[in-house]
Amino acid sequence: MERSMSMNYKEASRLIMSEVETALSQVDEDQVAALAEMITGSEKVFLVGVGRVLLSLQAFAKRLNHLGIPAFFVGEINEPALTPKDLLIVGSGSGESLFPVAIAKKAKGLGAKVVHIGSNPQSAMAPVADLLVRIPVQTKLGLPDELQSKQIMSSLFEQSLLLLGDAVALMIASEKNLDIKALWRHHANLE
Amino acid sequence: MERSMSMNYKEASRLIMSEVETALSQVDEDQVAALAEMITGSEKVFLVGVGRVLLSLQAFAKRLNHLGIPAFFVGEINEPALTPKDLLIVGSGSGESLFPVAIAKKAKGLGAKVVHIGSNPQSAMAPVADLLVRIPVQTKLGLPDELQSKQIMSSLFEQSLLLLGDAVALMIASEKNLDIKALWRHHANLE
Amino acid sequence: MERSMSMNYKEASRLIMSEVETALSQVDEDQVAALAEMITGSEKVFLVGVGRVLLSLQAFAKRLNHLGIPAFFVGEINEPALTPKDLLIVGSGSGESLFPVAIAKKAKGLGAKVVHIGSNPQSAMAPVADLLVRIPVQTKLGLPDELQSKQIMSSLFEQSLLLLGDAVALMIASEKNLDIKALWRHHANLE
Amino acid sequence: MERSMSMNYKEASRLIMSEVETALSQVDEDQVAALAEMITGSEKVFLVGVGRVLLSLQAFAKRLNHLGIPAFFVGEINEPALTPKDLLIVGSGSGESLFPVAIAKKAKGLGAKVVHIGSNPQSAMAPVADLLVRIPVQTKLGLPDELQSKQIMSSLFEQSLLLLGDAVALMIASEKNLDIKALWRHHANLE
Repeated sequence: MERSMSMNYKEASRLIMSEVETALSQVDEDQVAALAEMITGSEKVFLVGVGRVLLSLQAFAKRLNHLGIPAFFVGEINEPALTPKDLLIVGSGSGESLFPVAIAKKAKGLGAKVVHIGSNPQSAMAPVADLLVRIPVQTKLGLPDELQSKQIMSSLFEQSLLLLGDAVALMIASEKNLDIKALWRHHANLE
Repeated sequence: MERSMSMNYKEASRLIMSEVETALSQVDEDQVAALAEMITGSEKVFLVGVGRVLLSLQAFAKRLNHLGIPAFFVGEINEPALTPKDLLIVGSGSGESLFPVAIAKKAKGLGAKVVHIGSNPQSAMAPVADLLVRIPVQTKLGLPDELQSKQIMSSLFEQSLLLLGDAVALMIASEKNLDIKALWRHHANLE
Repeated sequence: MERSMSMNYKEASRLIMSEVETALSQVDEDQVAALAEMITGSEKVFLVGVGRVLLSLQAFAKRLNHLGIPAFFVGEINEPALTPKDLLIVGSGSGESLFPVAIAKKAKGLGAKVVHIGSNPQSAMAPVADLLVRIPVQTKLGLPDELQSKQIMSSLFEQSLLLLGDAVALMIASEKNLDIKALWRHHANLE
Repeated sequence: MERSMSMNYKEASRLIMSEVETALSQVDEDQVAALAEMITGSEKVFLVGVGRVLLSLQAFAKRLNHLGIPAFFVGEINEPALTPKDLLIVGSGSGESLFPVAIAKKAKGLGAKVVHIGSNPQSAMAPVADLLVRIPVQTKLGLPDELQSKQIMSSLFEQSLLLLGDAVALMIASEKNLDIKALWRHHANLE
């Protein structure tokens, strides 16, 4: 316990920041603009993913609600029925996760639009998604043009997803000309 | 819907990256090292927070479990009893949130160690916490030395918290000399 | 593994059914009618509780949403702001749980109505609640007129709470003359 | 709001109690005993379901943890890897829900035992499950020997599932000769 950690905080945080910066800078600006427009053009937004990817999506859902856009993750206590006016956002690096892909097919069958945020352009999501927003980071598949990461498991994808969601939220707030200070009125006020 | 968003993706993502980079670079390296040691020196780790802060803590809890460290958020289905050998990590920018502060006092009374990750050094958490890891970003309190943010609500704190947690996970993996590729054996394998 | 369990299923299920039946039959009909009216007279319903009590409340929240009544548990991803037109339902046998009581005070301060579903009429909830719906089952406090339970911990309260919530849902569906077969249109349709 | 509800509490609660009593009395005692033995003979227990069924399973998971049996729902923050020494419990009335069936196949492929608690004996779960514990209540399929329910949606299955889980918990506590009063030592103690 006494000896110093072999990687210190400065090294660890610089490694992370540098990887995230590279990942976010390689995301296509037009794909993100299309995502933002699909969100503001939908009646409700549904989000699906698993593990830490789901946590990043939940953070995005929470922020969309603050912007006045009804957003739900699949499985949420008050998840309503999806209609053709709605949008499903699938977060999955590989685009091969069992549950998200199955939900995407179901949503497509119900007439909703589907966006895939992921790394792999040739996944099971490709025939289902109306739009791919690609974060070109390392997957277990090892695609040739992927950004390699020295982090644990899929951390880089999960981090990039959170920050990408927050960028989209900023874009929507700015486009809607929302007074950011006034957004607290949509915010939970009990805790 | 046709006109272009007033803030585009490049601007939004650069704004976010620049703020997060500044925030993380101002965190004290010794405080983070102390946090990492308290985690590896504890039997179990409990985490408490609300809203998007809780989501960042849940991502941290998930990663700690992957490293073989039992971690639970307060309220989790299989939350066990806390003992004096355990550690409670409180995530709260202001350090004034009702629920986390009450839980911190309870944990302290039960003999556990308490770490506060927050922005405000003079909060209700100050007399309770054994350690403050300070991320000096904007709070609703407006402390003089705070980093101002142009983002929505407390986004900067939540983002910094996720990345700080991932930095600590990297430090622990490196200190324990863990083979990062082998960590998948602790990972959920059903979805 | 080979020897038979010392209490068999018939004994265990009869014990549970008999306790639940007694508990539910002792709940005051007028209190439940008042609860149903407060729910249908509110704009939104919030629910708070901890542990297995929270799970029973979440089941109730889900059903209220199916009836077209917006209901949220405190801490939910898309929890909105509470207003004076809303109702908070607190589930707590003892009425002394730290977090629910604190939230109840907050809600009261924000001008909302508060209902307590619990066992103890002289709890910290008494000065805060506009209505107590009493399920007179065993608490750790040992009130004189409590129904004693041979079940594990607070199982009897949690079971009674789920069934009471479903009774209220039936009452509201009947009062609103809802076609029960048609309720699936509010139901999540993705899983 | 002034007029009385068309179905009152006494009627609603009697309807529910009578349906639950009939449902539970038709569950096969030997199937439940086999379930209890599979639980105590496993290293860890995983549970999967959706919607209100998941809530009943989460209540069961919580109680199993109190009995010292590690139990997790699929998707939980600290869900570990499943091994051949583990048990998966699938809750699904119809046995046709997309996600639970897919998870069951995955678990089977990983060498774990699978139990199905459901209503439909000829479902997609039939070839996967090592054991069916049948609660013979109404499904959307309309099997000939089903117990018809006047309640909303699948309430009767969800209620029966909660109570069945609590019966199994009682059986295990009794078989292990556990002092029920002493179980609080496994119980979360922070809230």
